[in-house]
Amino acid sequence: MDPVRVIEIKKSVFEDNDKDAAALRNELRHKGIFLLNLMSSPGSGKTTTLIRTINLLKDKLRIAVMEADIDSDVDAVKIKEATGIPSIQLHTGGMCHLDAEMTRQGLDNMPMDDVDLVILENVGNLVCPAEFDTGSSCNAMILSVPEGHDKPLKYPLMFSICDVVVVNKMDVQPYFDFDLDKCKEYIRMRNPKAQVIPISAKTGEGVEAFASWLLEAVKNWKQR
Amino acid sequence: MDPVRVIEIKKSVFEDNDKDAAALRNELRHKGIFLLNLMSSPGSGKTTTLIRTINLLKDKLRIAVMEADIDSDVDAVKIKEATGIPSIQLHTGGMCHLDAEMTRQGLDNMPMDDVDLVILENVGNLVCPAEFDTGSSCNAMILSVPEGHDKPLKYPLMFSICDVVVVNKMDVQPYFDFDLDKCKEYIRMRNPKAQVIPISAKTGEGVEAFASWLLEAVKNWKQR
Repeated sequence: MDPVRVIEIKKSVFEDNDKDAAALRNELRHKGIFLLNLMSSPGSGKTTTLIRTINLLKDKLRIAVMEADIDSDVDAVKIKEATGIPSIQLHTGGMCHLDAEMTRQGLDNMPMDDVDLVILENVGNLVCPAEFDTGSSCNAMILSVPEGHDKPLKYPLMFSICDVVVVNKMDVQPYFDFDLDKCKEYIRMRNPKAQVIPISAKTGEGVEAFASWLLEAVKNWKQR
Repeated sequence: MDPVRVIEIKKSVFEDNDKDAAALRNELRHKGIFLLNLMSSPGSGKTTTLIRTINLLKDKLRIAVMEADIDSDVDAVKIKEATGIPSIQLHTGGMCHLDAEMTRQGLDNMPMDDVDLVILENVGNLVCPAEFDTGSSCNAMILSVPEGHDKPLKYPLMFSICDVVVVNKMDVQPYFDFDLDKCKEYIRMRNPKAQVIPISAKTGEGVEAFASWLLEAVKNWKQR
């Protein structure tokens, strides 16, 4: 297997990220590419969730992954080994988020001619990534059970910009004071339209529901 | 009980945060106040750890707490109710970290004449808070078992600037693939001098070791 490519992302020079993000979204629409921006806290299980989801969808969609990290390339290597799909690592050089121009730097290093779905695994951070539109077709986030059901109260912007909230590590719910109903209630306070999908990336439970949601989202977006 | 004060923090106008932080640290030294800057991911258990620690130390030290959060004042209320010590809430208005000037805005709203130890609970974020010196006497962080032992590889700066790493939620270690020895090894790669203290804020196990470490740090700093 070829080694995973590592791209060192440079700081953006664009001043108007919203404008740049809209332009990128438009370009991707014309190319028929759906870009999923996946966000979460550190250690909520983004990579494990992606591996399960990609393995359920890779026969239905042509998928590629960009793994953003401050350092290390363990995630991109894991994705490539476990799914066989194209995967590159973006090094943000200490930066706490990706914006549209940084996302474009990643996309410029991907095979874009035969891809339906590009998944961007953003930096593990519930604050800054919520403030920067990446040009994605859809924003998704993972909240894990050990983090607690009160997180929508504390990180309101992140929950308000996501189309779907995956609640991961449901297998360990018995060992934590995590109330799924309260969590849903708090998420809906921030974002009444957000889908909430409980899963366990470890056991696989619920991942099919997320994969179906994503497949549907890609199809609907292509038809729009 | 009086309601908890909520301070809306304004963006800093200082350009040289390092200089400002050094000045604040110096001022605090002259007043005999130790400032602990406590950082972690969202949901790693900062508030619960603080409550346990404060209850072990409040007869030995005069303690006050500043709880930074983007929104909500649940943490400051919890601390005040569970420990009885002075506690204020800092609202960062969406900002992802505190710097020295923002910390000073909080301190200006605290009773500073009869305090030995001020604990700043920083915004839940492993990236940005590591980049801004708050003027603290000491940096501490909490890593929780569910986040995984690989975090020092992914968030190198945070681990390199902390004098102590508290590993929380040890009670749920049997349910996660968390290797404490590997975690210690990765932390030492980033920071050979960092103390690593495993605890469970839920059961109380190990919290005494952290409290002793903190008491010692405050005493040594006062004598320096």
